[in-house]
Amino acid sequence: MTSNISRKHFLRSAGMGALAAGTAAAAFPTPVIAEQRRELKMASAWVKNFPGFGTAAERLAKRITEMSDGRMSVKVFAAGELVPPFEVFDAVSSGTADLYHGVEFWWQGKSKAFNFFTTTPFGLTPTEMKSWVYYGGGQVLWDELAARYNVKSFLVGNPGVQMGGWFRKEIDSLADFQGVKMRMGGFGGAVIERVGATAVSIPGTEVFQALQSGTIDATEWVGPWNDMAKGFQQVAKYYYYPGWHEPSSNVSAGVNLDLWNDLSASERAIIVSACQAENDEMQAEFHFNNGAALESLVTRDGVQLRPYSDDVLLALGKTAQEVVAEAAAEDAFTQKVYDSYMAFHAEARRVTESSDQPFARARSLVFEG
Amino acid sequence: MTSNISRKHFLRSAGMGALAAGTAAAAFPTPVIAEQRRELKMASAWVKNFPGFGTAAERLAKRITEMSDGRMSVKVFAAGELVPPFEVFDAVSSGTADLYHGVEFWWQGKSKAFNFFTTTPFGLTPTEMKSWVYYGGGQVLWDELAARYNVKSFLVGNPGVQMGGWFRKEIDSLADFQGVKMRMGGFGGAVIERVGATAVSIPGTEVFQALQSGTIDATEWVGPWNDMAKGFQQVAKYYYYPGWHEPSSNVSAGVNLDLWNDLSASERAIIVSACQAENDEMQAEFHFNNGAALESLVTRDGVQLRPYSDDVLLALGKTAQEVVAEAAAEDAFTQKVYDSYMAFHAEARRVTESSDQPFARARSLVFEG
Repeated sequence: MTSNISRKHFLRSAGMGALAAGTAAAAFPTPVIAEQRRELKMASAWVKNFPGFGTAAERLAKRITEMSDGRMSVKVFAAGELVPPFEVFDAVSSGTADLYHGVEFWWQGKSKAFNFFTTTPFGLTPTEMKSWVYYGGGQVLWDELAARYNVKSFLVGNPGVQMGGWFRKEIDSLADFQGVKMRMGGFGGAVIERVGATAVSIPGTEVFQALQSGTIDATEWVGPWNDMAKGFQQVAKYYYYPGWHEPSSNVSAGVNLDLWNDLSASERAIIVSACQAENDEMQAEFHFNNGAALESLVTRDGVQLRPYSDDVLLALGKTAQEVVAEAAAEDAFTQKVYDSYMAFHAEARRVTESSDQPFARARSLVFEG
Repeated sequence: MTSNISRKHFLRSAGMGALAAGTAAAAFPTPVIAEQRRELKMASAWVKNFPGFGTAAERLAKRITEMSDGRMSVKVFAAGELVPPFEVFDAVSSGTADLYHGVEFWWQGKSKAFNFFTTTPFGLTPTEMKSWVYYGGGQVLWDELAARYNVKSFLVGNPGVQMGGWFRKEIDSLADFQGVKMRMGGFGGAVIERVGATAVSIPGTEVFQALQSGTIDATEWVGPWNDMAKGFQQVAKYYYYPGWHEPSSNVSAGVNLDLWNDLSASERAIIVSACQAENDEMQAEFHFNNGAALESLVTRDGVQLRPYSDDVLLALGKTAQEVVAEAAAEDAFTQKVYDSYMAFHAEARRVTESSDQPFARARSLVFEG
C-alpha cells in the first residue's frame, strides 16, 4: 500500500510541475489533481485497544484506509483524545470529527428513538436487528433521525446476546430481586427498579471495586470475554443468563452528513461495505473469545453459571414491554420507530422460533443430553 | 462512478499518446499506465436472479466493482453461461473464471473436508461458523485445502438455519420415518437412510412435480422464502423444523490463487471486506423475507408448522454424529478439519446455550406465552 500512496504523491507533484511547464503536458495533470485525498478523523468512544470495541474501531478505520488505497485515510482518536466518549456524536455533527464509533443509546437525551438502533430489553436478536435495519425500514428511520443532527449512521457490530449479570447471592425467584442494588442503566435499569431492585449508576472503572466492597450486590457488563477481564469472578459467584436487557447491543459508526454528501459513489461503497464487514466480524470475535472465557470461568474459577428462572424472566419481560412502550410514547417520531421495530419483532420472532432457537435446543439435547 | 471510469480510460489513452510524443511527457504516463484495470469473470453456480443466492452473487460483484471504482470490474456469468454450476470451482482452479460463487460441499468428490466449510448436520450455527473460520483456525485449514486446487475461498453468506422439510404425512415419532422417500442429499441423506427413510436424489427443477405426484413423500429445500416460491405448500401440508441437517448452509466465493497473489494489498482488502459484507447481508435478507413468507404460509395457505419431536431429534442427532465422524476418518486432512471443527463446536455450544438460545426461549415465553 505504501508504494501506491507514494506513487500518488509523486503524480500530484508531477502534475503541478507539468501545468507550469506549459502546453505539451496540459492534457494530463487535471484529472490527476482531481483525485482527492481525504484525511479523516474518527472519534472513538472507547479506550485505546479496549478488547472487542476499541479494536473494532481501529479495524474499521484500517478497512476504509486500505480499501481506498489511502485516498480516505482514517485516523482513530481514542476516548478523550479528541472529545470525551459521550460527545463523539456531537463532534461528528459539528464537523470536529468526520466519523464516530460508539453506541446510539448514549444519545437518547436527544431522542429516545436512538435506543432502538442499539438494543431494547427482550428486543431483536443480532440477526433480526440487521434484518430490520437493512430490509425492514430501520435504516430509513435512522437516517431521518440522524440527519436532524447532520449525521449518517451505520451498524458496525455487536457482541452477541449479552450475559444477564453477576450476583453475590442466588436469584431463584422474583422475590430475590427485592432490594438488590444492581449496576444497570437505561431501559434495563428502569425494568429492575419496577420489580423491586435498585438500579445504580456507576462509571465502568469503579464497578469492580463497588461489587467487591458490597456497595452494589450485582452488576451487568457485557459477556464472558470482557467480564473476565474485569475480574468479576473474584468478587461474585453467580453468573446469570441470558442478557434479557441487551440482546443485541449494536455498535454504530456515523459519518458527518456534509462529508457523506461530498463522497463519490466509490467512496460511499467503501464505507458501506467496511461497516457491514465489521458488523459481520465483531460478533465472530466475541463468540470465539466468549467460548474460551466461559470455559475458564466455569472450570478454573468455579463460577456458578445459572439460568434465570421462568418466573423472573416472565416478570422482567412483561415489565420491559411497559417500560419500552412508555418511552416510545414520549414523542411521535419515537412512537413511529417503536411501531416499525415491534411490527418486525413479531414477524422475526416466528422465524427465530422455528429455526435458530429449536435448532440450538435440539443440538443441546443431542450433545449435552 | 461512470465519470471516474471514463477519466481513467482517458488517462490511459492520453498516456499512450504522450509516450509516442516523446520526452516532454515522459515523466507522467508510466505510473498512470501502471494502474492496472482488471476485467474479472465470476462463475456463479446460480440461475440468474435466483432470489437470495443468484442476487447475492450479483451484489458481491457490484461491491467489488464499485469499491475499486472499476479497477476490478467483475462480470457475473450465471449457471451454464460460462460453465455448469458444479464446475465453477474447477473453472476458477484452471483460470477459465477468476471467481466463483457457490457452495463448498459440492466439491466433496475431491475431499470430504469441503463439507465443513458449508455445514454439517447438528453442526455450527451461522454465528459459530464465522467464529471458527475467522478466529478458530477454520480459514487456515480452508486455505490449505483450496490451495491444492489453486484457489483461495471465503465465506459470503448463509440463509440462516434451514427448515426441516415438507412432508405429506405427519412425523410424530421416529417410527414415522420408516419407508419415507425424502429428497435429501449429502450427510443429511445418509442420516435419514440409517433411521429407515429412503434418501432420494432429484434435480431441483423436478422436486415439486415429484412431491405432487407422490414419487417422493417429503423434501427439504431451504427456508420459507425459497420454499414458498417453489410452491411446496400446494402439495404437502406438514412443514417441520428445525433444519437439523443444514444449520448454516454457507455460500462461498473463491478467487484463482494466481490472481490473488497478483493483487495489491488494497485490492485484497476490497475482496476480503466485500465477502464479509455479503456474509453479513445475505442472512439479513433471508431472515426478513422468511418472516413474511412464514406468515403467509401459515395464515394464508394453512400450512401445519410442526417441531420435530425430541425422540426424532435425538435419533437423528446421534446418527449424524456417526455419519460425520465416519466421513472424517476417510483421510488424514479431513480428520484434521473435523477435529478442529468439533473442538470449536464444544466450546461454541456453551456460549450459544447461555446466550442466543435461552434469550430466544425467554422472549418466546414473554410474547407467545
